[in-house]
Amino acid sequence: MNVELISVGTELLLGDIVNTNTTYLSKELANIGINVFKHTTVGDNKGRLLRTFDRAFNSSDTIIVTGGLGPTDDDITKECAAEYFNRDFYLDEYSWEKIKNYVQKFNKNNVLTMNNKKQAMIPNGAIILENFCGTAPGIILEKDNKRIILMPGPPHEMKDMFIKSVKPYLEKLSDQKFISKYIRLYGIGESLLEDRIKNILDEQTNPTVAIYAKTGEVLIRVTASGNNIDYCNELLENKIKEIEDIVGEFIYLIGDEDIAESQSELQYVVAKLLIENNISLSTAESVTGGYLSSILIDNAGISNSFIEGLVCYSNQSKINSLCVKKETLEKFGNVSKETAHEMVLGLANKTKSDIAISTTGIASPVENSDKPVGLVYIGIYYREQVSVKECQFNEDRNRIRDRAAKEALNEIRKLILENI
Amino acid sequence: MNVELISVGTELLLGDIVNTNTTYLSKELANIGINVFKHTTVGDNKGRLLRTFDRAFNSSDTIIVTGGLGPTDDDITKECAAEYFNRDFYLDEYSWEKIKNYVQKFNKNNVLTMNNKKQAMIPNGAIILENFCGTAPGIILEKDNKRIILMPGPPHEMKDMFIKSVKPYLEKLSDQKFISKYIRLYGIGESLLEDRIKNILDEQTNPTVAIYAKTGEVLIRVTASGNNIDYCNELLENKIKEIEDIVGEFIYLIGDEDIAESQSELQYVVAKLLIENNISLSTAESVTGGYLSSILIDNAGISNSFIEGLVCYSNQSKINSLCVKKETLEKFGNVSKETAHEMVLGLANKTKSDIAISTTGIASPVENSDKPVGLVYIGIYYREQVSVKECQFNEDRNRIRDRAAKEALNEIRKLILENI
Repeated sequence: MNVELISVGTELLLGDIVNTNTTYLSKELANIGINVFKHTTVGDNKGRLLRTFDRAFNSSDTIIVTGGLGPTDDDITKECAAEYFNRDFYLDEYSWEKIKNYVQKFNKNNVLTMNNKKQAMIPNGAIILENFCGTAPGIILEKDNKRIILMPGPPHEMKDMFIKSVKPYLEKLSDQKFISKYIRLYGIGESLLEDRIKNILDEQTNPTVAIYAKTGEVLIRVTASGNNIDYCNELLENKIKEIEDIVGEFIYLIGDEDIAESQSELQYVVAKLLIENNISLSTAESVTGGYLSSILIDNAGISNSFIEGLVCYSNQSKINSLCVKKETLEKFGNVSKETAHEMVLGLANKTKSDIAISTTGIASPVENSDKPVGLVYIGIYYREQVSVKECQFNEDRNRIRDRAAKEALNEIRKLILENI
Repeated sequence: MNVELISVGTELLLGDIVNTNTTYLSKELANIGINVFKHTTVGDNKGRLLRTFDRAFNSSDTIIVTGGLGPTDDDITKECAAEYFNRDFYLDEYSWEKIKNYVQKFNKNNVLTMNNKKQAMIPNGAIILENFCGTAPGIILEKDNKRIILMPGPPHEMKDMFIKSVKPYLEKLSDQKFISKYIRLYGIGESLLEDRIKNILDEQTNPTVAIYAKTGEVLIRVTASGNNIDYCNELLENKIKEIEDIVGEFIYLIGDEDIAESQSELQYVVAKLLIENNISLSTAESVTGGYLSSILIDNAGISNSFIEGLVCYSNQSKINSLCVKKETLEKFGNVSKETAHEMVLGLANKTKSDIAISTTGIASPVENSDKPVGLVYIGIYYREQVSVKECQFNEDRNRIRDRAAKEALNEIRKLILENI
């Protein structure tokens, strides 16, 4: 199957919104072995859209269109597809009931208009894809081994419809099954990882193995295909075992999903470790400024484990709340091994948590300092013991914060795994 | 001028990276009055790329291509463009020197290869666009009132080259000047804003006025065009004055740049107000979990103003560090007006800062609670006075945090403006 993705919307051509739909669909389709040939974005213009369909069907047998299914007169995708496939419309009573209920529930001030009815008009012979997140149903039209699939433009509506209806429809067209697993690694760079698993990358056929660099970490996608799920799973397990044998020490999570929205799963893994092992944590953040605590607290159920966070960006706060000595700050500077040490010790004494973490570092150039931007110290307290890790991140301001927080998370993770 | 944007790269078709280049270019081109007709993404395939050029020149006079200028054999954009325009190549000595220096400086382990030399090969008669952020120079080829502009794919290289070379080149092709200003508003929704400035929106010709919704805030772009800058500026100033007269109370910033990467400028405005007026601040964050402090600390120079932040997600921390009464938590709950009040008062007593802020709220469903998700209380302390603001944000977990932090920032902003 050859697919072309067409996005419809003048707002895309004006640069008002980023086209994340094509990225999402491309990745999902690649995952089930479907070849995407081309992406095209056009405005809400009938002539151009019809010409685009025509041209696309010259090289592809399947067109997936997102956008232009809304209730206004600008939205013409469905009308163009019906014209292209030569179909009349009928009112689908089920879709119409759903739209009426939806509008009454969510748009209390809105009166139903003829425009809403337009969304319930369906081309003859179409497969209707129910929209569980909005009003516009999706549509599939088929003819002579060609098919056009229409989905709404809002990403959450489109994704839900793709997973629930379009993906199963496409999978049924093929006998092949595809399963992917995602291996997340921290503490090894992309090129070193490539080097270490070079043989696996070079020899890959089935499963396929792909590496993706994320900020400060790396993701490996392993995809197996075959006629049945058990066979795919066995292929997957064997290949993952091979990878674990080589770089297992850097792996922090092997999962079924690449949660594209969240760049990292490290905070989730650490929160889970803390909660499940009933370990308490407190943080004293200078360079990370509250970012470390905020990403940990994103995880439900953390409130019993996360005792307290302190954002001590000023020296005054380090002295008053953490009993860092003024002489230490003067002699070694606020970004120093010694300060990180006193910060974390003061914090542990104050909060009595099992683990305490401090961060101090340089995120942007400081006058009269000979210390380099990106220098970060992370203080780690556990069972009366303090250690300080020195890091040098060659990144920009915000990325230094991000890297420092991740490095701290990884230290917590290693500490828990070594001690339980 | 009609423009088609073509992105080249198999990694885009696989969904491995999001195509932010087209969004950026579309917006920048719209800003200087240039019409983008279409976006197309194709893989690194000679036949398909040549057919795409051919088809694109049927409806557009200008093609802007990003990607495929790298040193490897896959990168064929320049070769295809030269073939399409029937040009031979020569070695550009200046580009070659630059590439040699660049490779020696940044890729210490890399040996120069023939592939690097490929990047210095230029089609006859091309305009060369210097790459200040990487090795691949950009190229412009012109013939019979048609032009093709090639830029590298990495976004930071492309943006730098667009601003420094391509934008001035395109502007020279037209006599018109374009200037935009961006008005940022907090505390008014998109539809209410549309309603309030409906006359301005309906009557717009020059300047044009466009509204963009961001999380919890709204951006208005006003763009004036004309033969000279002074005339444009005058048009802009008058239109902005009109808008200020209607919704001035919600405007927190009028600026030259829409900094696309940062969704909000509110933290920057608040940090500036704190620093310039020498006002100290401390925060006690429950629902925002350190997010409020982390976005404030993103601003350089804040360390003298930001006294201390406390992340008191647990009740234990609220009691021990902020002297919130156990009875208050039991009687009213940790998400209550009373708790927000005691939190901020305890914080102010502890840190002695001029302004103190507390946040407490419900970001995800809580068992046995009759309080709704999205309920947030913000405690504000200033000069012995405490007030508590109750908010209801109907958003998902992370957006509730974001809205709560922004609401807190806006309260700080209003407080400072009312009292200085």
